[in-house]
Amino acid sequence: MTRTVAIIGCGLIGRAWAIVFARAGLNVRIWDADPAVIAAAPAALHAACKEVGQDPLVLSHVTVAADMATALDGAEWVQESGPERLNIKRQIYADLDRLAAPETILASSSSAIVASQFGADLPGRGRILVAHPVNPPHVIPVVELCPSPDTALVVMDRAEALMRDVGQVPVRLAREIDGFVLNRLQAVLLAEALSLVAQGIVTPQGLDDTIAHGLGRRWALLGPLATINLNAPGGIADYLDRYGPTMARLSNGAARGEAFSGLIGQDLAAVMPAPDQVPALSQHRDARLAALSHFLTSDQQGTI
Amino acid sequence: MTRTVAIIGCGLIGRAWAIVFARAGLNVRIWDADPAVIAAAPAALHAACKEVGQDPLVLSHVTVAADMATALDGAEWVQESGPERLNIKRQIYADLDRLAAPETILASSSSAIVASQFGADLPGRGRILVAHPVNPPHVIPVVELCPSPDTALVVMDRAEALMRDVGQVPVRLAREIDGFVLNRLQAVLLAEALSLVAQGIVTPQGLDDTIAHGLGRRWALLGPLATINLNAPGGIADYLDRYGPTMARLSNGAARGEAFSGLIGQDLAAVMPAPDQVPALSQHRDARLAALSHFLTSDQQGTI
Repeated sequence: MTRTVAIIGCGLIGRAWAIVFARAGLNVRIWDADPAVIAAAPAALHAACKEVGQDPLVLSHVTVAADMATALDGAEWVQESGPERLNIKRQIYADLDRLAAPETILASSSSAIVASQFGADLPGRGRILVAHPVNPPHVIPVVELCPSPDTALVVMDRAEALMRDVGQVPVRLAREIDGFVLNRLQAVLLAEALSLVAQGIVTPQGLDDTIAHGLGRRWALLGPLATINLNAPGGIADYLDRYGPTMARLSNGAARGEAFSGLIGQDLAAVMPAPDQVPALSQHRDARLAALSHFLTSDQQGTI
Repeated sequence: MTRTVAIIGCGLIGRAWAIVFARAGLNVRIWDADPAVIAAAPAALHAACKEVGQDPLVLSHVTVAADMATALDGAEWVQESGPERLNIKRQIYADLDRLAAPETILASSSSAIVASQFGADLPGRGRILVAHPVNPPHVIPVVELCPSPDTALVVMDRAEALMRDVGQVPVRLAREIDGFVLNRLQAVLLAEALSLVAQGIVTPQGLDDTIAHGLGRRWALLGPLATINLNAPGGIADYLDRYGPTMARLSNGAARGEAFSGLIGQDLAAVMPAPDQVPALSQHRDARLAALSHFLTSDQQGTI
């Protein structure tokens, strides 16, 4: 029997998830509280496929549900991708938990709201977690799986297995933490980046070049820990012996939250591509990410 | 007339630089204080070319110099790639400044010692800077150009132009700063990464997956600032309005220098590829980096 999942919320993220599950051959039911969003979804899904070279035929696995209950019927997994507002999430999860069969897992795409904030008071809190993708998940495979203190281990096991089954790369967090892993790493790097630009040490372009034409390439191939494991003859312990004191000094002197305040946003906006270019640049980024993903996957086969 | 550069210090970094300049068609003179290193250099250069698919014929531009003065004769640029120890750098720069023609630029590959520390007392301090590559520079193009307070602007201009001429991506820093840009960014990310692993929130593999299969892919294509410029409908100012407070909270709660202390290195070494695998894995990394560089360069031609 073909497995079934439901996508609740059909904005950019929900539609990208629909492609992830559909191309893996699962039945996908989509629903959104806003009739205009759901009416536009089929054409938007088609366009999203075309932009990244995905055959739109996979969309034959996607059906629009008439209401939330119909979407949930027989679904083993709900990928909730609604607005990033706590009061809305609380209402959605109250509805989902009431309507979904007991064995259905309820996973949120939330990037900033932890599951205990919207699930702790519900009878089904043990089947609720965050499955945070990097936008857009049909071209970036990582998914952070973050439990609340109530999430059952068996639910985490099933979440991890499903994500692997559909070709994503699940990263399982041992317990709930603000920002999960990805945005904690992004936050510290951005703080120092914004500070260096605000001090006039480097231009925004120079800052981006340092990562895009430098460290980011190693990180994209290996990740930051595997990178330093190869940066000293004796591996990571040797690296930390040699360079740990320097790295500690640099971190202690680095910027923190204050880097996000002030006029830095307006200063940067003045020299970076303008907001009216964001849609076209985002489409182009996604096409390049899809090509990069293809490159990394085929290249990876040669890994020793 | 063919341009000439000198490589002083022929370890891994010096040899990679020799390939960078040679493949751009420059005359390259190499020299090392250790006769054993210089004796092994031709074979090591040949092997390094083969590993990344570079035709070893470019090595016809490389000649071994009998002594430092011969290496410097007629060179417009010296890429010093000696040991990362201050007392040794001081001696090398005293010799270089005495022996090199006045117009020759003296650039250090140092990753952690700023130019004022070894150049401030020399008559030629105005022509000394750091040109910090990411290892290895023949497969990773970024080069941080960091002046001392004494470095002449015209020297920075010539450094930037030369790096562009040989196909690298120069990032010019406005003034001297500990760690330059790249390692300041790496330090803060590593501190938080080590802390998350030490706390048991995520495994080392999960941490690396989060970047390699997630954020690192965007960073490799765009860099961190161009990434957030596309992560809100109104561009980077909109992003910082929406997510700045969250990012500030996460940075304020992040780990710092203390994350580099303790037993984390030994714990990580126990679960990561062992030191005896480092040489083979590094070779494999370089081959993949060369392929990635080729992919990004050809893909970039389609950039809007």
